[in-house]
Amino acid sequence: MAGTDKTKAAVQGGPAVILVDPQLGENIGMVARAMLNCGLGDLRLVRPRDGWPSRQAEAAASGADAVLERARVFYTLGDAIADLDRLYAATARTRDMTKLMVTPRQAAAELRAAGGKAGLLFGPERSGLTSDDVALADAVIQVPLNPAFSSLNLAQAVLLIGYEWHQAADETPARVLSMGPNRPATKAELLNFFERLEATLEDTGFLRPPERRPAMVRNLRSLFTRADLTEQEVRSLHGVVSALIGKKRPKS
Amino acid sequence: MAGTDKTKAAVQGGPAVILVDPQLGENIGMVARAMLNCGLGDLRLVRPRDGWPSRQAEAAASGADAVLERARVFYTLGDAIADLDRLYAATARTRDMTKLMVTPRQAAAELRAAGGKAGLLFGPERSGLTSDDVALADAVIQVPLNPAFSSLNLAQAVLLIGYEWHQAADETPARVLSMGPNRPATKAELLNFFERLEATLEDTGFLRPPERRPAMVRNLRSLFTRADLTEQEVRSLHGVVSALIGKKRPKS
Repeated sequence: MAGTDKTKAAVQGGPAVILVDPQLGENIGMVARAMLNCGLGDLRLVRPRDGWPSRQAEAAASGADAVLERARVFYTLGDAIADLDRLYAATARTRDMTKLMVTPRQAAAELRAAGGKAGLLFGPERSGLTSDDVALADAVIQVPLNPAFSSLNLAQAVLLIGYEWHQAADETPARVLSMGPNRPATKAELLNFFERLEATLEDTGFLRPPERRPAMVRNLRSLFTRADLTEQEVRSLHGVVSALIGKKRPKS
Repeated sequence: MAGTDKTKAAVQGGPAVILVDPQLGENIGMVARAMLNCGLGDLRLVRPRDGWPSRQAEAAASGADAVLERARVFYTLGDAIADLDRLYAATARTRDMTKLMVTPRQAAAELRAAGGKAGLLFGPERSGLTSDDVALADAVIQVPLNPAFSSLNLAQAVLLIGYEWHQAADETPARVLSMGPNRPATKAELLNFFERLEATLEDTGFLRPPERRPAMVRNLRSLFTRADLTEQEVRSLHGVVSALIGKKRPKS
């Protein structure tokens, strides 16, 4: 239905993903899924070994069909990259070439800053990109991982590089208290609870001897303040206090 | 062989990965692989559905056997997290709970800063973590991805969060020119080439009219300087010039 294709609306342009000599359709499907996870929609296949379209790719794409449907097949890498003005090659192998090496995060920053149309180049599953392919790239992306165990499968490499591309423009707050339907307690509600708790504890004899009272009160107030209580939670705590002293829960 | 187990040396401590009710052994194996990619070695399984050890897990681990061999099985989440002092739950679902939400990057920074022993909690493949499990976590990690297509499989979620943990202490330069066995050309070598090229072009009449010569020279010098040439490449360019004017290549 027009207007309800969420995946279509979610593709944000961004670099093309170019797979050279991909072998398994399943891996192409998983690449499509990783691309859509990251908002990438332009998939280009150079000589897919098992032909195209691929039922295995569709099965593995888990809903990223929109990316597969728009995928284009090329017979040479030159044709696949002709319209691009910047090309990054993903490869785990270091070579004896003189080449600019960038991290995925750096590549993402450069891609976001450059504008124009860029491409991310990935080689076949077993062998990776040839040096001839890499020679056409402006820079090589290596994903910094455990040096003793750095091999990634094709879709994981696409996911990590795509993730950095997505992150580079993502505005999700790094750290936020999610409250669902609740609102934070006001300081008045908090102070009201503190005073009630302290008065109640006073009655039980907990806040003695008197010279220790100020420190004990500070510790309790500090503890409950640190919990970033919601209004609902302050009411729950009132209920807990009432229950512990054997009173009926106040109406909330 | 003692001393040659590269994977063993590569595990860097870091947070435990706790899988609650994991279903397929294959996914556990792929989690182990993603963990080792990121230098994580402490895998804990709470009630793996198909039992443990698992041949499917071993087949999927692609060499990350060391992680599987050290994996521990628990029958309650409480037992699995008893020795931890900080717990982050990975979940894609937002809930009506009042909970601290962090990005993977923020979680990684906090994990690196905190010291102590922390855990990353992941739910079963289909259903994810229950709210009761999430309630035990200090914070929830959500991976910011395409909001219209954000579902990740278990190993991909572990990979992205582990990747950020690894990145947080990684010192790979963001951008570096890799030269293989070569060294950068010195400015003297570059100037020598420029002067030879310009003298040769002078002879061919390319640098006329004279009033345009300074700008043409500047453009050529700028172009070759931007290429960050190696000493070997400057020699190649000398050879190219010689070949084009029909001279024998100078001895290199």
